[in-house]
Amino acid sequence: MDFTGLCAFPPTPLTPGGADEDAFRGIIGRLADAGVDSICALGSTGHYAYLPVAERVRLTAAAVDAAGSVPVLTSVGALSTDDVLTLTEAVQAAGVAGVLLAPVSYQPLTRAEVLGLYTDVTAELTVPLCVYDNPVTTGFTFDDELLAEIAALPNVASVKIPGAPVGDLPAGQRAATLRKVLPAHVTIGVSGDPFAVDGLLAGCDAWYSVIAGLLPAPALALLRAASSGDAVAAREISASLQSIWRLYADYGSARVAAAIAGELGLADSDFLPRPLRPIDEAGRVRVRAALSAHQ
Amino acid sequence: MDFTGLCAFPPTPLTPGGADEDAFRGIIGRLADAGVDSICALGSTGHYAYLPVAERVRLTAAAVDAAGSVPVLTSVGALSTDDVLTLTEAVQAAGVAGVLLAPVSYQPLTRAEVLGLYTDVTAELTVPLCVYDNPVTTGFTFDDELLAEIAALPNVASVKIPGAPVGDLPAGQRAATLRKVLPAHVTIGVSGDPFAVDGLLAGCDAWYSVIAGLLPAPALALLRAASSGDAVAAREISASLQSIWRLYADYGSARVAAAIAGELGLADSDFLPRPLRPIDEAGRVRVRAALSAHQ
Repeated sequence: MDFTGLCAFPPTPLTPGGADEDAFRGIIGRLADAGVDSICALGSTGHYAYLPVAERVRLTAAAVDAAGSVPVLTSVGALSTDDVLTLTEAVQAAGVAGVLLAPVSYQPLTRAEVLGLYTDVTAELTVPLCVYDNPVTTGFTFDDELLAEIAALPNVASVKIPGAPVGDLPAGQRAATLRKVLPAHVTIGVSGDPFAVDGLLAGCDAWYSVIAGLLPAPALALLRAASSGDAVAAREISASLQSIWRLYADYGSARVAAAIAGELGLADSDFLPRPLRPIDEAGRVRVRAALSAHQ
Repeated sequence: MDFTGLCAFPPTPLTPGGADEDAFRGIIGRLADAGVDSICALGSTGHYAYLPVAERVRLTAAAVDAAGSVPVLTSVGALSTDDVLTLTEAVQAAGVAGVLLAPVSYQPLTRAEVLGLYTDVTAELTVPLCVYDNPVTTGFTFDDELLAEIAALPNVASVKIPGAPVGDLPAGQRAATLRKVLPAHVTIGVSGDPFAVDGLLAGCDAWYSVIAGLLPAPALALLRAASSGDAVAAREISASLQSIWRLYADYGSARVAAAIAGELGLADSDFLPRPLRPIDEAGRVRVRAALSAHQ
């Protein structure tokens, strides 16, 4: 896979007894049918950080199967490098087209430790890797020099930048700055759906998207408008999703995605891996209103 | 146990092949012999966050055995509540006198989710629990009202406050403020060794101490001086450890503790769970100099 276009990050439908694999296969198959460019099974929205290693491998294999010819990637992030390496070997065997790796942290990591993590993991890879820069969940903030050092490692193919890093540049400017220091073969993808339109119009190669995992049609329309340079149309589509972006800001996108999956009938419930809890009833009312505009 | 006095947080000696149980038993036995009031096996300094659940249970059982009559507690923190509950059941069966729980996070947790975590875990407890407030490793900042709500749950016996919370009060003032909102039976313990003297002189009931896991003698002397109201002597002892406090600031206390264990011959090496890496040679030189004053 080439880490361009629309990469959908679907939620993993969970129940108190474990993941609902049939519902998960249904979600993956629906995205493949919709024509997304790739699917990240078990990204942050898919709750990778909360699931046992064996469960992550099992669900990733199911996603590869359900996605047919659409490339599947998965997160191999974990607190310990041992777990990251175990996951990496297993998901490669399960047929993923690529892996996503964030420097998940307990003790705040040093720059050298993060470089060491990517060095250790890329040495074991047979598929390309996307560097997952997400300071909100990892507590680690990359600088451009470090991203350039990591991008020079073998098998690094993409960098997933946060939409609005704390105290940093808007997505568009961030992508332009980063482009100057990364090798040409490493793509830049924007995340943080509310900022995707800015990132894409500024030349990001990919959109790593939560909403594409649930509403692939407007996400594809936004991507295509931006890719063809139609800024007005791209901004209109993003604006039409504004009420969902507001829900992300109020509840966090992973909780909102679970609620949307429940409302759309893609999952039996909005159960989240504890300690995470579903959004409240006021949020559910807002989710229903937001979805009614896109159904 | 009553969660007062000196609680030592030793490092877990690791090797690339796993934990060195004999060395670990040696460290625990040495602390029991030194007369610490309690031992937290597999706290942050003991790398709990990086070790598999089964390994944590196995090492905790070894610590209970090696500690003899000294109470042992352990951290049951994990990203998923399922893992926290599995650990809680297993370490209780292994004979711990108490458990320590931090709201370990990937997705930033809401207040309600953190309260839910402690509600779920305390419902399963047969031993007392210490609330572990560590915003640096968890990304979560408790407010006093939330701590008061959690302290009202069954089996909550102590709150471990950070020595110097970001943007918050010094340890002493923090303890005094918190004392007003907690039930009388819930103790307050200070952590962050450099700030322990301030916390203890301000009336903290316990010192949750990294250095006590390695150099129990000066830690006990500091505690006893502070407990008897001898502020001058307590401050002198803390000042004598100033070069170690500076190493904590530069490298993080968990990395420094591993290096000290190596220098003292308590562990074969300063190997840390990857992605963490040992401190550099300049740091090792400083560790040797600091230790020479206390041997």
